Amino acid sequence: MTSQTRGNLFILSAPSGAGKSSLIKALLEKHADIKVSVSHTTRSPRPGENNGEHYHFVSVDEFKALIDQGDFFEWAQVFENYYGTSKAAIESQLEQGIDVFLDIDWQGARQVRELMPSVKTVFILPPSQAELENRLNNRGQDSQEVIAGRMAEAKSESSHYDEFDYVLVNDDFDTALMQLEHIVMAARLELDAQKHRHQSLIAELLA
Amino acid sequence: MTSQTRGNLFILSAPSGAGKSSLIKALLEKHADIKVSVSHTTRSPRPGENNGEHYHFVSVDEFKALIDQGDFFEWAQVFENYYGTSKAAIESQLEQGIDVFLDIDWQGARQVRELMPSVKTVFILPPSQAELENRLNNRGQDSQEVIAGRMAEAKSESSHYDEFDYVLVNDDFDTALMQLEHIVMAARLELDAQKHRHQSLIAELLA
Repeated sequence: MTSQTRGNLFILSAPSGAGKSSLIKALLEKHADIKVSVSHTTRSPRPGENNGEHYHFVSVDEFKALIDQGDFFEWAQVFENYYGTSKAAIESQLEQGIDVFLDIDWQGARQVRELMPSVKTVFILPPSQAELENRLNNRGQDSQEVIAGRMAEAKSESSHYDEFDYVLVNDDFDTALMQLEHIVMAARLELDAQKHRHQSLIAELLA
Repeated sequence: MTSQTRGNLFILSAPSGAGKSSLIKALLEKHADIKVSVSHTTRSPRPGENNGEHYHFVSVDEFKALIDQGDFFEWAQVFENYYGTSKAAIESQLEQGIDVFLDIDWQGARQVRELMPSVKTVFILPPSQAELENRLNNRGQDSQEVIAGRMAEAKSESSHYDEFDYVLVNDDFDTALMQLEHIVMAARLELDAQKHRHQSLIAELLA
């Protein structure tokens, strides 16, 4: 009996307004063998966000206890909130052959890269400054002050694009989605994965 | 004025009968910005092969003169014949933003990898030993002795599959072609290429 070929771990980072959430959503809808890791956070749920689906919403005390237990693959404090990724959940999915996406920022990406250098990291850029501003304004649920803060945060986040393996420009959504698929599918064809997946064939050909 | 983003260099290797030539042909027909490097060889043209299209057919003396002049990116002797890849032609195509495929064996792949570590290397395997034998027999232009020799050579060539970055199994032709496209398209999304391609956007976002 052959064990399942291990899935790949990806990180998807982007400034707010680059369209990361919509891209991940569309990718998951098309591919049952791709999942996104559900992070822990201490921030309050936004309207429409469900515990366990969008985030595991926990208190600061609970979060700090998880840090002390070594339960996080990576964690970060962004403004007054904590965000973190559970190790155990990711490992279990990878072992089942599922490709797992981490939706984290550049700080988290650095931590994960150190722990797992084989992680594939992808950064998404918006198509222009004007379009970014437009997208952030269109959300319509934040004040001008919050939007200005987000624009500054977006620029700061974007400045780390060159720490990533791949860069996508989300101009046309379908193109960006296809590009993300190219990256995922190419990773499945790398030597180590294929060597495991086709071990019987390889043994036969080299017998 | 912005210079053209440089193309990527790929190596495609496979045992005879894995379907490499048909895959390259289909890839080039679909993508005008992908070309295959035309190699030099001292072997005789097979029926239907044209000088300058399938190979540059040269004499052994001419080939050795090119070696002495340092004109080859890589070269190898396979049985009694020489095969080699001209440096100048490849560099000119890469500078024009064209992705260039080298259709060479594992020995050539080793030489190119040493000279250009950024090369992406792809190995194609047949779907089974029986199918490989079937494909080699179906060519119908060689003796049983030649076919037996090719089967031995295929096994020897296949034993080097694990020196390559990517491995494809050519079971279904359209799937294998799509997989090859994933690899090419993903390479275009790597940081260095995108950094160059989108330098104006990046400057704008980080201003």
